[in-house]
Amino acid sequence: MRNPINIGALASGGGTNLQAIIDNCEAGVIDGRVAVVISDREGSGSLERARKHGIPAVHAHVPKTGTPEWVQANRQITRVLRDHEVDLVCMAGYMRKISPDLLAAFPGAIMNIHPALLPSFPGTHGQADAHAYGVKVAGLTVHFADAEFDQGPIIIQAAVPVLDTDEEDTLVARILGLEHQAYSQAIQWFAQGRLQISGRRVIVDGVPTATDATLVWPPVELG
Amino acid sequence: MRNPINIGALASGGGTNLQAIIDNCEAGVIDGRVAVVISDREGSGSLERARKHGIPAVHAHVPKTGTPEWVQANRQITRVLRDHEVDLVCMAGYMRKISPDLLAAFPGAIMNIHPALLPSFPGTHGQADAHAYGVKVAGLTVHFADAEFDQGPIIIQAAVPVLDTDEEDTLVARILGLEHQAYSQAIQWFAQGRLQISGRRVIVDGVPTATDATLVWPPVELG
Repeated sequence: MRNPINIGALASGGGTNLQAIIDNCEAGVIDGRVAVVISDREGSGSLERARKHGIPAVHAHVPKTGTPEWVQANRQITRVLRDHEVDLVCMAGYMRKISPDLLAAFPGAIMNIHPALLPSFPGTHGQADAHAYGVKVAGLTVHFADAEFDQGPIIIQAAVPVLDTDEEDTLVARILGLEHQAYSQAIQWFAQGRLQISGRRVIVDGVPTATDATLVWPPVELG
Repeated sequence: MRNPINIGALASGGGTNLQAIIDNCEAGVIDGRVAVVISDREGSGSLERARKHGIPAVHAHVPKTGTPEWVQANRQITRVLRDHEVDLVCMAGYMRKISPDLLAAFPGAIMNIHPALLPSFPGTHGQADAHAYGVKVAGLTVHFADAEFDQGPIIIQAAVPVLDTDEEDTLVARILGLEHQAYSQAIQWFAQGRLQISGRRVIVDGVPTATDATLVWPPVELG
């Protein structure tokens, strides 16, 4: 593996996760550099963030999923990623499916983050769905991408309490703080060559094999 | 609410959760007494445990779910629970659906425990399904029962790490230790009159409204 690694980011929206990745690369927390940012939305904040940091920012027009034009657009994205010698593709709020071609071009090297404890609450409204369901523990998942949304092998998960006082926005905020840490950590493990995919399981080299860490919510008061 | 409350337990299997409830009642940790144990399996360990503690132990033959005979059997169970002046029904490894009649007879007063972070991994193999999926965080859910399995309002959830060294049995054991605490805590909150169901949400009176508790697995190492 190249060191630092070249990261290619796919985004659709404002890109606070992208910003955290850029910042952690610049701070040396991640042994990597963001080599290119590609967004399917021309005016998106993520392209703006990239330009501010002198990172090539590419708008890719991505037609309707599943059409031949969508396949072509994904080939074009693949080409851009390869032109920038990308080692790891990070989906950071990219709201589109990626094509089998693109997946095959970066085997075991495309990551995504989802703001729920998968397989609970997949889809585009993870935190809102968790809040509406009434769970007491919510969270996030960083995982490798696969042909479906939100179903690839899991690298790291984080769990947080849902408070009785929570509304959707406060739950979003509680999870977001951890998203930045967890995603950067997963990327750094990749950069260090410590991730190994074995079936549906991701083995992280050097993880403790014993712990009594738990999160119980509401907290148990029994003596 | 009567104090101590009368608990009626429904069981199918060996009943380690039942044993924890009995022990915590006898120790005064739960303001309750187990008034009757009903099992759909005649030789089950749960009936044996009940008898050892001088608790009435009733075998109920429960025919195929959905049949008129199943409805009748559920009416008979309801009658036994009422005869023992049960305030709270606790499903403790009871592997059968309960009828709408039985549900209606104890509104907001039937609890169940499931060894997964619902809505992930419902059904009879929660821990095995979580292990096979490759989640990094697993757990348990204590919830009020509803007409479907594993879908009622959630009282308490507990999250634990899944270690790379885990097999199904070690994960089962890690979750089981918390099951006993969490279920007894939920019962004690009920006995104290501190649970209020509001739509899909269960409000527990006196719970902290701020916390920075999290469980991240594998642990984040970034500086």
